[in-house]
Amino acid sequence: MTTDSPETTWSTAEEEIMEATYRALLEHGYADLSLSRIANELDKSKAAIYYHYDTKDDLLAAFLEFAVDRFEETVDTETGDEPSEDLEHVTEKLLPLQPDAEQRQLQAVLVGLRSQAVTNEVFREQFTQIDERLAATIRGIIERGIDEGAFRDVDPSRVAEHILATVNGAMYGRTTTDRKSAAAAARVSLASYIDSELRRRS
Amino acid sequence: MTTDSPETTWSTAEEEIMEATYRALLEHGYADLSLSRIANELDKSKAAIYYHYDTKDDLLAAFLEFAVDRFEETVDTETGDEPSEDLEHVTEKLLPLQPDAEQRQLQAVLVGLRSQAVTNEVFREQFTQIDERLAATIRGIIERGIDEGAFRDVDPSRVAEHILATVNGAMYGRTTTDRKSAAAAARVSLASYIDSELRRRS
Repeated sequence: MTTDSPETTWSTAEEEIMEATYRALLEHGYADLSLSRIANELDKSKAAIYYHYDTKDDLLAAFLEFAVDRFEETVDTETGDEPSEDLEHVTEKLLPLQPDAEQRQLQAVLVGLRSQAVTNEVFREQFTQIDERLAATIRGIIERGIDEGAFRDVDPSRVAEHILATVNGAMYGRTTTDRKSAAAAARVSLASYIDSELRRRS
Repeated sequence: MTTDSPETTWSTAEEEIMEATYRALLEHGYADLSLSRIANELDKSKAAIYYHYDTKDDLLAAFLEFAVDRFEETVDTETGDEPSEDLEHVTEKLLPLQPDAEQRQLQAVLVGLRSQAVTNEVFREQFTQIDERLAATIRGIIERGIDEGAFRDVDPSRVAEHILATVNGAMYGRTTTDRKSAAAAARVSLASYIDSELRRRS
């Protein structure tokens, strides 16, 4: 997979803190997250967290990196077939047609974290890297599709940014409005776009 | 224009408060907004604001409605030509290729306000209405294009949701990352999509 930054190696202790952070975020949301709550989930003292991360923002920045690493691992494991199926697979991962409770809560958490990126430089760098890596993943699939003759000779970067913007925007709308069917409508239209714009007619 | 809610009539006093809120948001951002700062911009006491709005959230909900009314007025005034030009015009309004400082600050303010919609029911209703009205505007242009024979017989709702998700997602990315060219790349790809998916070949 094409990525602009190599995956970090996570120690067992760090992974445990990340898993505890994830559970605390799902349970309390971003607004009510505290190091005490993460320590509770970890079943250790706050000192055990401070040993690895200086501030809550440092920990959350690491968490975002951890989440993208995990996401990319899943994508790596589950793709590698037809480029158009891989694209469909990645968009379903990023914007599930029928999100379960955990996926909805995770998206709510991400919107809370991302809004901090407007003013917080550390978060902004993380989301820059996240979008960069996601765009690179999508671009890589498109480039492979063109190389293999399955896709027409489109501009892989532009199409990748279009797909990423659409899934991000639909997820954003789903999380911040009560428009129940809007995200699914956008997904269906995006699939038809991918089909008509990308796939080479035989 | 097709809208799901009629435009509110704003009294002069309300309009002045809205303008003062807009200036205060541009100057201080959402995180540092206070009624005192709005009152300063208004050059009146906080009581003058409380006479019209019970809480800061009520005022901000009204402000969102005011902003969409204004947006729709501009769109109404400046569209009505070729459907494809009108679509281009609306996407440029929502996602300027070269946003100036005020437009960038407004988008930052909107991301801050919208993140509150994850948990705040009043804001959620406002953003539901905002997206509903924007989607209706886009859908109306597409329907007119189909009626006039300029566009192919696509599903206007799905395509409208796709366009809205793409501009919202690209704006969101521009405001929360340092990926300078991503939004423009998505815009170019969206324009090519509109051209290939919508326009009837003569």
